[in-house]
Amino acid sequence: MDSHKIRDLLKAVQENRISVDKAFGELKNLPYEDLSFAKIDHHRHMRQGIPEVIYAEGKTEAQVVSIARAMHKKSGSFLISRATKKIHSMLKIKGSVFHPSSGMISVGPKKDAKGNVLVLTAGTSDIAVADEAAVTALFLGSAVTTIYDVGVAGLHRLLDKKNLFTEARVIVVAAGMEGALPSVVGGMTDKPIIAVPTSAGYGTSFSGLTALFAMLNSCVPGIAVMNIDNGFGAGCLAHKINTIG
Amino acid sequence: MDSHKIRDLLKAVQENRISVDKAFGELKNLPYEDLSFAKIDHHRHMRQGIPEVIYAEGKTEAQVVSIARAMHKKSGSFLISRATKKIHSMLKIKGSVFHPSSGMISVGPKKDAKGNVLVLTAGTSDIAVADEAAVTALFLGSAVTTIYDVGVAGLHRLLDKKNLFTEARVIVVAAGMEGALPSVVGGMTDKPIIAVPTSAGYGTSFSGLTALFAMLNSCVPGIAVMNIDNGFGAGCLAHKINTIG
Amino acid sequence: MDSHKIRDLLKAVQENRISVDKAFGELKNLPYEDLSFAKIDHHRHMRQGIPEVIYAEGKTEAQVVSIARAMHKKSGSFLISRATKKIHSMLKIKGSVFHPSSGMISVGPKKDAKGNVLVLTAGTSDIAVADEAAVTALFLGSAVTTIYDVGVAGLHRLLDKKNLFTEARVIVVAAGMEGALPSVVGGMTDKPIIAVPTSAGYGTSFSGLTALFAMLNSCVPGIAVMNIDNGFGAGCLAHKINTIG
Amino acid sequence: MDSHKIRDLLKAVQENRISVDKAFGELKNLPYEDLSFAKIDHHRHMRQGIPEVIYAEGKTEAQVVSIARAMHKKSGSFLISRATKKIHSMLKIKGSVFHPSSGMISVGPKKDAKGNVLVLTAGTSDIAVADEAAVTALFLGSAVTTIYDVGVAGLHRLLDKKNLFTEARVIVVAAGMEGALPSVVGGMTDKPIIAVPTSAGYGTSFSGLTALFAMLNSCVPGIAVMNIDNGFGAGCLAHKINTIG
Amino acid sequence: MDSHKIRDLLKAVQENRISVDKAFGELKNLPYEDLSFAKIDHHRHMRQGIPEVIYAEGKTEAQVVSIARAMHKKSGSFLISRATKKIHSMLKIKGSVFHPSSGMISVGPKKDAKGNVLVLTAGTSDIAVADEAAVTALFLGSAVTTIYDVGVAGLHRLLDKKNLFTEARVIVVAAGMEGALPSVVGGMTDKPIIAVPTSAGYGTSFSGLTALFAMLNSCVPGIAVMNIDNGFGAGCLAHKINTIG
Amino acid sequence: MDSHKIRDLLKAVQENRISVDKAFGELKNLPYEDLSFAKIDHHRHMRQGIPEVIYAEGKTEAQVVSIARAMHKKSGSFLISRATKKIHSMLKIKGSVFHPSSGMISVGPKKDAKGNVLVLTAGTSDIAVADEAAVTALFLGSAVTTIYDVGVAGLHRLLDKKNLFTEARVIVVAAGMEGALPSVVGGMTDKPIIAVPTSAGYGTSFSGLTALFAMLNSCVPGIAVMNIDNGFGAGCLAHKINTIG
Amino acid sequence: MDSHKIRDLLKAVQENRISVDKAFGELKNLPYEDLSFAKIDHHRHMRQGIPEVIYAEGKTEAQVVSIARAMHKKSGSFLISRATKKIHSMLKIKGSVFHPSSGMISVGPKKDAKGNVLVLTAGTSDIAVADEAAVTALFLGSAVTTIYDVGVAGLHRLLDKKNLFTEARVIVVAAGMEGALPSVVGGMTDKPIIAVPTSAGYGTSFSGLTALFAMLNSCVPGIAVMNIDNGFGAGCLAHKINTIG
Amino acid sequence: MDSHKIRDLLKAVQENRISVDKAFGELKNLPYEDLSFAKIDHHRHMRQGIPEVIYAEGKTEAQVVSIARAMHKKSGSFLISRATKKIHSMLKIKGSVFHPSSGMISVGPKKDAKGNVLVLTAGTSDIAVADEAAVTALFLGSAVTTIYDVGVAGLHRLLDKKNLFTEARVIVVAAGMEGALPSVVGGMTDKPIIAVPTSAGYGTSFSGLTALFAMLNSCVPGIAVMNIDNGFGAGCLAHKINTIG
Repeated sequence: MDSHKIRDLLKAVQENRISVDKAFGELKNLPYEDLSFAKIDHHRHMRQGIPEVIYAEGKTEAQVVSIARAMHKKSGSFLISRATKKIHSMLKIKGSVFHPSSGMISVGPKKDAKGNVLVLTAGTSDIAVADEAAVTALFLGSAVTTIYDVGVAGLHRLLDKKNLFTEARVIVVAAGMEGALPSVVGGMTDKPIIAVPTSAGYGTSFSGLTALFAMLNSCVPGIAVMNIDNGFGAGCLAHKINTIG
Repeated sequence: MDSHKIRDLLKAVQENRISVDKAFGELKNLPYEDLSFAKIDHHRHMRQGIPEVIYAEGKTEAQVVSIARAMHKKSGSFLISRATKKIHSMLKIKGSVFHPSSGMISVGPKKDAKGNVLVLTAGTSDIAVADEAAVTALFLGSAVTTIYDVGVAGLHRLLDKKNLFTEARVIVVAAGMEGALPSVVGGMTDKPIIAVPTSAGYGTSFSGLTALFAMLNSCVPGIAVMNIDNGFGAGCLAHKINTIG
Repeated sequence: MDSHKIRDLLKAVQENRISVDKAFGELKNLPYEDLSFAKIDHHRHMRQGIPEVIYAEGKTEAQVVSIARAMHKKSGSFLISRATKKIHSMLKIKGSVFHPSSGMISVGPKKDAKGNVLVLTAGTSDIAVADEAAVTALFLGSAVTTIYDVGVAGLHRLLDKKNLFTEARVIVVAAGMEGALPSVVGGMTDKPIIAVPTSAGYGTSFSGLTALFAMLNSCVPGIAVMNIDNGFGAGCLAHKINTIG
Repeated sequence: MDSHKIRDLLKAVQENRISVDKAFGELKNLPYEDLSFAKIDHHRHMRQGIPEVIYAEGKTEAQVVSIARAMHKKSGSFLISRATKKIHSMLKIKGSVFHPSSGMISVGPKKDAKGNVLVLTAGTSDIAVADEAAVTALFLGSAVTTIYDVGVAGLHRLLDKKNLFTEARVIVVAAGMEGALPSVVGGMTDKPIIAVPTSAGYGTSFSGLTALFAMLNSCVPGIAVMNIDNGFGAGCLAHKINTIG
Repeated sequence: MDSHKIRDLLKAVQENRISVDKAFGELKNLPYEDLSFAKIDHHRHMRQGIPEVIYAEGKTEAQVVSIARAMHKKSGSFLISRATKKIHSMLKIKGSVFHPSSGMISVGPKKDAKGNVLVLTAGTSDIAVADEAAVTALFLGSAVTTIYDVGVAGLHRLLDKKNLFTEARVIVVAAGMEGALPSVVGGMTDKPIIAVPTSAGYGTSFSGLTALFAMLNSCVPGIAVMNIDNGFGAGCLAHKINTIG
Repeated sequence: MDSHKIRDLLKAVQENRISVDKAFGELKNLPYEDLSFAKIDHHRHMRQGIPEVIYAEGKTEAQVVSIARAMHKKSGSFLISRATKKIHSMLKIKGSVFHPSSGMISVGPKKDAKGNVLVLTAGTSDIAVADEAAVTALFLGSAVTTIYDVGVAGLHRLLDKKNLFTEARVIVVAAGMEGALPSVVGGMTDKPIIAVPTSAGYGTSFSGLTALFAMLNSCVPGIAVMNIDNGFGAGCLAHKINTIG
Repeated sequence: MDSHKIRDLLKAVQENRISVDKAFGELKNLPYEDLSFAKIDHHRHMRQGIPEVIYAEGKTEAQVVSIARAMHKKSGSFLISRATKKIHSMLKIKGSVFHPSSGMISVGPKKDAKGNVLVLTAGTSDIAVADEAAVTALFLGSAVTTIYDVGVAGLHRLLDKKNLFTEARVIVVAAGMEGALPSVVGGMTDKPIIAVPTSAGYGTSFSGLTALFAMLNSCVPGIAVMNIDNGFGAGCLAHKINTIG
Repeated sequence: MDSHKIRDLLKAVQENRISVDKAFGELKNLPYEDLSFAKIDHHRHMRQGIPEVIYAEGKTEAQVVSIARAMHKKSGSFLISRATKKIHSMLKIKGSVFHPSSGMISVGPKKDAKGNVLVLTAGTSDIAVADEAAVTALFLGSAVTTIYDVGVAGLHRLLDKKNLFTEARVIVVAAGMEGALPSVVGGMTDKPIIAVPTSAGYGTSFSGLTALFAMLNSCVPGIAVMNIDNGFGAGCLAHKINTIG
């Protein structure tokens, strides 16, 4: 039952072609799903400008390209995660950028970067995940600062950059292996921290599981933890927190 | 926005006190949640006679008693799972029955038992779980037959009862340890089988996990598997299948 | 000891060539396995028309083809799961259909589709598993309806299709990642639900284990759970429930 | 080496009692740890009014009481988590409140509650954890709204409260069993969501592990996940996000 | 259909009261389960003297006592595993023996101990499990030799007893912690070895899981492994191997 | 210190060229390892004719070939496990046989096959592992009978072959998926049973772990369990038990 | 065959009462186990003064007391781990000390404490394990320094004590929860570090498993890791390293 | 703020160009991180000659080569772990050595090998990991002895080499499968033992996890355990212990 049907019903009431009781009965049974769907559409409209994101893994290159082109036509911007250089060259969309370290492709949107998201990594092998977070937050409209390779084995590298903590509104920390960096950073600042375990490591790193559990057990209270290698999720949450209020 | 409000609105349209456009706007924004709530209430009404179930574990005896009494007042029947004899004696509700092997308490409802649910156990230590399934299915209105201790270590016990398989509409099989019974039963009948792993066993039985995984990997296709010790769930599903169509 | 032997023995008793005691002794020791084998054969005969299914994974393409041809000659129909397009082209059997999304190949059988199995997926990456269930149920003789990509992140998509729930006799829900869809669907209908966890996801999705455990722990009682990616099993169970009674 | 020592050294340089080279040598070797300690002290001063929190589990009642009294003397306020009624009665501190559902004890601080933290639970057995989050956030200075028992098995209960989502700045969702609620809530709002898995459940709920992994694998991007039963951490993070900017 | 019925049938054939065809039909349909049951009974009879075993864990003391008394009346002997001294004193059966280290109670049977089962333990905390194996094998009729506390941390203790290996027909090795003893013993003898992991240990001993996996991965080929703490099973297998041929 | 040295020393004592004290000192310090080594060599001599076995996995083809040739030169026989057809063709050793289903290569030894090892599989995908056991036992000198594809989903196939159980001295059962076959066989015979879990299956079969745990938890006491896919170990143990006494 | 026997044999050779051949034969067969046993005894003698240690867990109080008294009589000193105050009061041995935080009881030995073992803990709940290490190392003869509660959430506490690192020869670090402290300490010193995971924590700390895996995956190379809560082992290794050379 | 700046400041104080208060303020705020960085630099200087190590896994060949060349230019020596022959041929650095069994590449440094590190393996498949330890310790300046393939299945091989234990200062033991060798070696010596689990094995070896847990649960107290396959870490720790004080 869409808008026209509801209007017709109301008109019929107005013109006494149908009784209040019967109209009430029909309205009561109107599929709220359609209404709720409309509401969400409206809600989406209010969020206009926030482009859809395509997760390329598990899709053929051709599929990714056609979805991306459709999005581009509709909204002028999109973000592809876990993409490849080949997909980028197949896209042939002006202004699209391939981010090699994170494997992301983005087009637009044009807007002023707000706030300040600080993205840290423990090691060089965590950079892909961190960059996925950074590119995502940038794409959504957040200003982003990145510092890489400041793991706990060389604390001085981290202490050296501590002033950047005070300038950030929210801090994303990507770390693999023993996943200790979020705790150490969390001990040095009261900013919200988003910890992303990475699958860097071998043996009992269990492809990131050890880092994940270490982060969940941080002695610093209130660290937000993401799924392993989920830089995209970290970027989304960082943007939400960064642009709050 | 409840019924009265909608009726008032419709009346206002009928009496031309408010335009169709404005009424439409108000209706479009009416919280569908209320409507959907009403629908579910209505739906519940259609399912009249199906009593609520109280899961006693983690509640104080006093809490269980007061919830049960409230239910009894409203619907005249209820089912309590994971209860104790003490709760039963505290209830002081006429007609309530304590089922010692499953730890359930039931009152009503009076109805003819339909169909035929066959409940089997591999060993004597699986009987508590099997009885939870049996009491639940009975309570919901299914006829139930039980055969216990027919595990695979003595196949003849099972073969001896095979004719009961053909009489059943659905078969619940509770087994701990290696959880092999559902596969063996499944090889002897084409009736839907609901397998319930029990926590009976020690060491690498992992409190039922081994039986659970064995059941999920049955070489007989299409066995429905429940959570460990979830006799209640098995009883619910058995009743749904038993009374279908 | 086959039929002829038993008849000969009985004749010998009738003609007093052998005493009752001795005949009893021989009969007592007759291998019941043969009898039981015969019974099961007979049982199979009663189930005539239900074609065998070939699980292609772990077999060479040549093996699959020769088994399939033998089956086709005997029964005129068969179903191959986890197959490839190449196997299909090697088969050269008229009327055989390759189902690309599920990787199944089917021939026959011709029969009227009965009942109504509704198959849902949470995301697009769960479609292969869902289609395995759908093709299987169709092949076994059930009517099947499919709705894909109605995951919990956009509830309106699901609410929009709720009327299909009431038309179904049994609902198959395939979901990976957090595996939440069966619970949400289960909260909206009283039809039997078969949940199939899929291996879609990464990190702590543990190739479907997280979805599996979520489904086993559903707050909605009585959801039937399958092994990870076991669309075939879901199709079998759905067909059994759909055609019960 | 504290401030006085540095001033004395500088004075000695000014008065030529010690050469620049020697002063430089002493300064170069001054333990930066002290400086860093001082900085953190200063930092703590800036955070003045944020009381310490005592984790009572694993401490004797007497230990908890004496630590709490010392804190109370110093700052006039404190928060104890995982406490008991007995500890509260032993404290004999005027104005201290025992929160029975969360097992917390708080005194002060007096301040205006800022922002709006919405705390939800899937079931009644998740309330202890949710209340730990709520009491913590309140204690730290956030305004808190709670809605309990709105799990996915009865979506209408949740849809009914959806307007509260728009009023919140951040949403805490506590859920055990299959842990599906954060995904469903996340599909209905763009507010930051903090998911807390609880140990409610049995069998393959693995004392909250299944809920934890489900939350980490949410199809809704950017959900912040806490350790199992870590309501305190959720309260801290919620407060940080709620009072940002 | 029992023996009398079959005899009656055969007599009816002999006396021409019933045709061969009809008798054949009845015999063909006679429930083979009954036959198979009879067979197993017969088989049991052939194994006369092998008493039943009662697993006391999970049964009330009264239940254990009444089962034991019934067995004693029927066969004059029985074995109870995981029992208590209290059960023994409740039994009041002459000749019953309580084995304190293994928690077993046995009565009879009187027979000559055959062969030679050697039972070893790595440490003193493995003795309960080893004694369960020893008492079981003795009860079933095997001669048993035990050497305890010869773990790999003091190889000389083991080397000192090596001559006992050559005298044994089968060797049971109970070990907890790292479970290394079966490998070391297996490197010193070609006798069949039955390894029983025990739950002795803490932390990553995982209640015997580490010992179990170590034993399954022994570099010595052909070690038979039992479930954790399953001394009873080890005793059964040891007896079977010891008395073979 | 070898035999010659000890004789020389004794001679020197006899001829008074060296004092008893000094000779004692030398003997006391003689590396017992050498003696023990000699003993083991001697022991090996007594076991003459039992060829060494080469585990090919993780070695280059050239390495396997050169080890095999050296063994062949020394003992005239050898067994290679986890080998390939290519290795066989590189060997160029007369009389060597490649066993395709198990991936083994054997040469000799010529001897009469003793006893009777029965090897069963649940499904066709367990045959590789079962054949590894069969070829190993044959190679070591045991007579072997094999029956494949008699899994619990079609009990009649197994019951049909039950007479073979009585003829066997020991039974090897290879099964993947739910690993139920050893329990069922164990309920039908009192022969020692060696259960080998195979990695056949998917999802929660966990590459054989579920079958392993099911076998360790068999309700039939005394089943010997091997590591996953360890057909070689099963063959060794079967041979040891088969040829005992 | 002990020393006297060998001397007698040699004398018999010297005096020509027995031939070289016969003497050789007897020597060749002399049980090397006895020799090896003697060697180890001798070795023990060389290690004289290193008292035995009693692990009290799983022993009755009476057993612990009688073992301790026997040891005390023999060597004048002993160490009991996982003991209780009650055991101490039962001992009635002059000079015995009960260490309440570690649950250890020690008597003697009197010796000068050598070297310098530094023992750190992340939190207060790790002190029991750290003290077990400290008391053990002290008992074995090492000088020990302890600093507690210097976890990574407050780095300044650790930096403040850094000079103690340079004075230590080996550092023991006990930490639970996320187990990050050994990495941070390891980044600040080149001394050997022994990491002991403790079972402090809840939820996904998995009773110390998360800390254990974090330590095994430290980005600082060469950290020695112990079993969970194994302070005794850490004390032993620390003493070995501390007193090396 | 570097040395020059501090000197300038001190000079300004000396010359009264700036007040003590202002100089104090500047010094108090001087970034201690820089100082700490300098300290570590200085510390590095003191450790002159200890070359950096490059972990090649996860880096492109070109990246490894360019990092190695830069290191070589700066320090004249380097070590690459998990490298390939191809990287070595791309390096074109005179004096660089490729170690094929460990996959390491080293250049320099020239120094006398100190102490004695003994490296053992249980089997031939553990040699790659053992060689990583050996090459690392050698590179860092330790003398190294290696004995391979002395696993517990043939104790005599190990006993034969026992004298090497007394000559070693520290012993590295690499073992896969059941990981029993460290315990056996630990029972024969009081030297510090570093156990390295290797991923050799299949099935329940879990890629080294079983060996790891076995080592952590050794009945010999004080064995240092490394991550799976972490030969590099074992080499580092062995060198630290070997060259201690």
